[in-house]
Amino acid sequence: MIRVGINGYGTIGKRVADAVRDQPDMEVVGVAKTRPNFEAERAVARGYDLYAAIEDRASQFADAGIETAGLVDELVAQSDVVVDATPSGIGAQNKELYEEYDTPALYQGGEDADVADVSFNARGNFDDARNADHVRVVSCNTTGLSRLLAPLREEYGVEKARVTLVRRGGDPGQTSRGPIDDILPNPITLPSHHGPDVNTIFPDLDIDTLGLKVPATLMHMHSVNVTLESEPSADDVRDLLEGESRIFCIPPEFDIDGTGKLKEYAKDLGRPRGDVWENGLWSESVTMEGNDLYLFQAIHQESDVVPENVDAIRAVTDSMDGAESIETTNSALGI
Amino acid sequence: MIRVGINGYGTIGKRVADAVRDQPDMEVVGVAKTRPNFEAERAVARGYDLYAAIEDRASQFADAGIETAGLVDELVAQSDVVVDATPSGIGAQNKELYEEYDTPALYQGGEDADVADVSFNARGNFDDARNADHVRVVSCNTTGLSRLLAPLREEYGVEKARVTLVRRGGDPGQTSRGPIDDILPNPITLPSHHGPDVNTIFPDLDIDTLGLKVPATLMHMHSVNVTLESEPSADDVRDLLEGESRIFCIPPEFDIDGTGKLKEYAKDLGRPRGDVWENGLWSESVTMEGNDLYLFQAIHQESDVVPENVDAIRAVTDSMDGAESIETTNSALGI
Repeated sequence: MIRVGINGYGTIGKRVADAVRDQPDMEVVGVAKTRPNFEAERAVARGYDLYAAIEDRASQFADAGIETAGLVDELVAQSDVVVDATPSGIGAQNKELYEEYDTPALYQGGEDADVADVSFNARGNFDDARNADHVRVVSCNTTGLSRLLAPLREEYGVEKARVTLVRRGGDPGQTSRGPIDDILPNPITLPSHHGPDVNTIFPDLDIDTLGLKVPATLMHMHSVNVTLESEPSADDVRDLLEGESRIFCIPPEFDIDGTGKLKEYAKDLGRPRGDVWENGLWSESVTMEGNDLYLFQAIHQESDVVPENVDAIRAVTDSMDGAESIETTNSALGI
Repeated sequence: MIRVGINGYGTIGKRVADAVRDQPDMEVVGVAKTRPNFEAERAVARGYDLYAAIEDRASQFADAGIETAGLVDELVAQSDVVVDATPSGIGAQNKELYEEYDTPALYQGGEDADVADVSFNARGNFDDARNADHVRVVSCNTTGLSRLLAPLREEYGVEKARVTLVRRGGDPGQTSRGPIDDILPNPITLPSHHGPDVNTIFPDLDIDTLGLKVPATLMHMHSVNVTLESEPSADDVRDLLEGESRIFCIPPEFDIDGTGKLKEYAKDLGRPRGDVWENGLWSESVTMEGNDLYLFQAIHQESDVVPENVDAIRAVTDSMDGAESIETTNSALGI
């Protein structure tokens, strides 16, 4: 069993903890958090050992009536792998701690790429992360683009990708974020960071990305153009994408018109927290004009990196190959 | 003086009426409306003769204490040109009325293209509408795209245009429209109607468009890619676009980050109703990657077609050439 510690128990950390616990070859040593809140209460209720991430604030947990198992250093010491799911920038600060205990660590996509030896997407470059000590699981949007571009590159070749990312302004719980009633080019200058980030997975890919922010919380939306090196039919492309386990090709007859109904479908499926781990790709939108492919896909910013973190744990411990890991993760989660 | 009647006094009609009144060579004969509401009250208060558009409902105006000058037929009979600004689909039904009185008519972009002899954009194809009896002023988004593509075609040649239109869900007063907290591919299938609609102005242009709807009311946003036939620098393109009178190139130092601040700027300028008649194009977003141009522009759905309607009036009466009309309209409005 791979012993996994999770440092940071927020949006990503709590989901990764649950996904790790569901795997046949892993166990959760514990989770670390900076301060008590509803998520800390739930962590203990779910049976996770809770470690205080900041020594000076450890007493706050006792004050809130929440039992802790010790400090984060002890969690790192006991773990075969640590998943750092702390806010952007904090992961880089924690690197020293993981090195001190010689514990391989995963970081999230909010960190700069140079925090790690390799940036990771299970479908894109699993082997690059085998036995690495520091691996960065790329962000939700980069994950979604990598999953889509990997099969297109392999099957047809990609001349150029151009993507407009219509991003949700904040998650449902991020009550101080905007915009309200506005559409923001974000950033105004090009490219957005997503294109260069995809290049951490596919260094030789020609990709231009434009980012926007809108008053929505549920999922991101990608308006995708990929100029292919060959001219398959739209049906060919659909067949190819339907064969990808982490792309959910939304059938027209489901009558899912946007991110709201897609999330509702995930809840009807009984998915934990209504998570959509796969890219939600509208089958009907897949269109070929000459060698230009167009399509829409929705990306669940809170959860699509969760199975990728699980696979990255197997990569750094070199305990399975990529295909086997993806299949094991999917099977355990019910993807 | 060109005598202009306006049939439909809603979002577009009231703005066109005010713009026509401001022109040195035009007068407003009157405006027609189906029923009394705050806009009918304002029409009379502004000194426009108000005509009842539906005979059976004419008495509603008297019941509401709003004086009418007669029925819409009389308005059409007295006008040299009628601007039909009725809701989508009604314009086509009104065509018979305009033909009965042999009055040239302008229709709005919500009508099918075949309602008219020619679709119109002042910068794109003014001459095509000279002396035409039935002219369709293309929709707000098509207007914004035509203004942008006309100079790019002339100066550099356009190999292909690819545009993602992130559209506002409804106008501020359209209280029953959505979405709330969602991002909708709309339509899910490609192309959206905008590409074919731009082809009514530039029949030989290769353009693919994707449409989305988001929870915003202020303006539409275009994420634009144009593959040019030559490779100008981004500065060259910026210089070209800054020379276009109906493209406002937003300077970086204005610190306008989206549609909200752009509308606020229009209000600070004293623009009637805070209207943004020009394309709002972010200078900083203009980027060249090889011969691929990228940029963001915002389109005010309620007002960008207003100067185009004024120019179309001159086209159908063949009273000025395109350049002179655009200059006259701009000067009268303060563009």
